[in-house]
Amino acid sequence: MRICIIGFGSVGQGVARVFHMKRNRIKKDYDLDLQIVAVADSEGAVISEDGINPALLLETKQNTGRVSDYPDYGFSGVTGVDLLDTIDYDCLVEVTPTNICDGEPARSHMLKTMNTGRNVVTSNKGPLALGFTELRDTAQINKVMFKYEASVGGAMPIINFAHETLSGCEIKSIYGILNGTTNYILSRMAKEGSSYNQTLNEAKEMGIAETDPTQDVEGEDAACKVVILANSIMNMNVAYDDVIVKGISQITPESIQLAKKEGYLIKLIGEVSQDSLEVSPRLVSEGSPFAVEGTLNVATLKTDLADDVTVVGKGAGSIETASAILSDLISISKSMKNI
Amino acid sequence: MRICIIGFGSVGQGVARVFHMKRNRIKKDYDLDLQIVAVADSEGAVISEDGINPALLLETKQNTGRVSDYPDYGFSGVTGVDLLDTIDYDCLVEVTPTNICDGEPARSHMLKTMNTGRNVVTSNKGPLALGFTELRDTAQINKVMFKYEASVGGAMPIINFAHETLSGCEIKSIYGILNGTTNYILSRMAKEGSSYNQTLNEAKEMGIAETDPTQDVEGEDAACKVVILANSIMNMNVAYDDVIVKGISQITPESIQLAKKEGYLIKLIGEVSQDSLEVSPRLVSEGSPFAVEGTLNVATLKTDLADDVTVVGKGAGSIETASAILSDLISISKSMKNI
Repeated sequence: MRICIIGFGSVGQGVARVFHMKRNRIKKDYDLDLQIVAVADSEGAVISEDGINPALLLETKQNTGRVSDYPDYGFSGVTGVDLLDTIDYDCLVEVTPTNICDGEPARSHMLKTMNTGRNVVTSNKGPLALGFTELRDTAQINKVMFKYEASVGGAMPIINFAHETLSGCEIKSIYGILNGTTNYILSRMAKEGSSYNQTLNEAKEMGIAETDPTQDVEGEDAACKVVILANSIMNMNVAYDDVIVKGISQITPESIQLAKKEGYLIKLIGEVSQDSLEVSPRLVSEGSPFAVEGTLNVATLKTDLADDVTVVGKGAGSIETASAILSDLISISKSMKNI
Repeated sequence: MRICIIGFGSVGQGVARVFHMKRNRIKKDYDLDLQIVAVADSEGAVISEDGINPALLLETKQNTGRVSDYPDYGFSGVTGVDLLDTIDYDCLVEVTPTNICDGEPARSHMLKTMNTGRNVVTSNKGPLALGFTELRDTAQINKVMFKYEASVGGAMPIINFAHETLSGCEIKSIYGILNGTTNYILSRMAKEGSSYNQTLNEAKEMGIAETDPTQDVEGEDAACKVVILANSIMNMNVAYDDVIVKGISQITPESIQLAKKEGYLIKLIGEVSQDSLEVSPRLVSEGSPFAVEGTLNVATLKTDLADDVTVVGKGAGSIETASAILSDLISISKSMKNI
C-alpha cells in the first residue's frame, strides 16, 4: 500500500515512527506492505516512488524542521495539493492541524483524494465536524474507504468499536469524557482542592494544556467530537453549530468539594442522543466508569441489547493516535483484499 | 443463514428473543436473513427447514419447559448430536451449560459441526478453557469460522475488540474483573461494611449468586476466561490447570476497610501475561477504571502502541450475552460474502 502523508507534526511523526517499528510485523501478520511514497509539511515535501525511509525522514525533520531536506528526494515549496496532483498512491493519511473555521486545507486534500478513487485515513477533526456528510457521500460515490478512528479520542477506540465489534446492537446514545486536558484539570482540582487557574497553569507547565487552552477548556474540542460521533455512529446529520457548549472555566473548588461529599465528581461530559447534543460539566458518581482520572478519555455507548458498554483509553499522544491510524490502514487493506 | 441452536437455557432463549426483535432490521442493515432451522434442549428438539418462529418457540418453552412441544415439528428424545447428523444448516450456536470437567457435550457438538464444513458461534467456556487449540485448529483445517465473543464477559466485548478494533497493536497483557458475581459481593462489602457470608446470602436472594456459588466465588469461572483470553488474544497454548486460582471467600470487611483508607479497593482480578496466569484478589486504586461497582466486568489490554485500553460492560444477562452472539453471526455473514 503506497501511502501519502500530509502533515508532519506530532501525529504525522507518530505514524512514521509506528511504520518504522512495525512494518515487518504488519507485513508478516497481515500481508500488508506499508510504503510511504510522499510526505508534505507546511514548508515542502519529499517524494520517492521507491519508498521513503521513516527513520531518515524523522531524523531529517528533527534536525532541520523540514521534510524537504530529506536527501535527494526533497522539494522545497511543494504543497499537499501539489503532491496529490503529481504522485501515484493508494491511501492518503491526512494529519494536518485541526482547523474548525473552514476545515481547510484538510477538506480539499480529502475530497481530491476520494475523487481520484483513493482511500483516506485521518485524525483531523475540523473537516469532519464541519462537513461530515459531504466527505462520507464523496467516499461512497467514489467507492473508496474513509476511516477516521483517530479523530475522536486518540487511542480510545470508539468509531470502529461501534461499527464492527458492536454490529449486533443499535446505539441509542453516547456519553463521554472526550477531552483529556479538562479531565486532568478537574481530577487535580478534586484531589488537591486547588483553583481552576492554578491547576490550568500547572497543566500548561506540564505540557498537558496548550499555551492557548481555549479549544480544550471551553469545550470546543469535545464539541467537534460530539458532532463526529453523532454523524458517524448514530447516522445523524448535524454540524458544530448544533451543539450546546459549556466549558469548565467557571468551576470552583467549592462546587467540586460539595459534589465529592455526596459521592460525585464533576466531569466535562459530551452527550450525543437524538434529543441532545451537548458538552457541559456534569456530576458523575464515584463508582462509575466515568470516575477515571488524569488525561484519560472514556465513552459509554447505550445500546438496545448489550445495555451500557464503556471504553477507556488515552485521548492523545503521538504514538497512541498513530496506532488508531494503523488499525484503520489494516482494515482498509483487509477490505481491498476481499473485493 | 440457517442456524441450529443447541442448548435452550438463559442464553439460548436470549438468542431467540434477539432474533425475534431484530430479524427484520438485520435483514435490512446487513442483507442477512437469520433463520432458526433446529433447536435442541436436554429433553428433545424442534426441526423445521422452513424456519422456526422464535416467538412461538419461546412461548412453548415457557409453557411446558420443552422445545419438543413446539406444534407439529417437535421431536421428544432427540439429542443435539442427533440433530447435527440429520439436518442441513450453516452455523451452530452452541449454548449448552458450561462443563469445566470435560467440556462435553459442547466440545463434540462443535467438532462435529466444524468437521462437516460449518461455522460455530458459542458462549460456552468449558470446551474453550479445556481444549482451545483443538477447536481452533479444527476450524482452520476445515476453513470454517469459529467465534466465541460471548464466552468471556457476556456483553463486554474483548475478543473481537482485540482482534479487529486494535488490529494495529500487539497485546502485551490483559488485566480484568472477569466475574460479575464476585464484583457485586466485593462492592457491597466495601459500601456496607458487611461480612462475606452475609453479602453472599444477599446476592443469592437477589439471584445474582447461584445456589452453589463455588464456580464464581472460588475464581473458577474467571480462570476459564483467563485461559480463553490467553489462547485467543495472546496466542498462548495453555489450559485451565496452568492458572493459579484464589477466590474471595477469605476476604474480611476489615481488610476492605483498611484498603479503602489508603484509597484502594479489593477486586478479584484475572491476569494474563507471558509470565503469569492468575486469578486472585488484588488492590486497585479508587480513580482507576477498575473501581467499577455492581456486576460489571472490566478488562484492560496493555498494548505496545496505544498504551492501556479498557472496556467495561455487563458480564452476564440473557439478552446481553445474545447480543455478542448476534455480532459474531453478522461478522461470519460478512466474511462469507467476501469469499
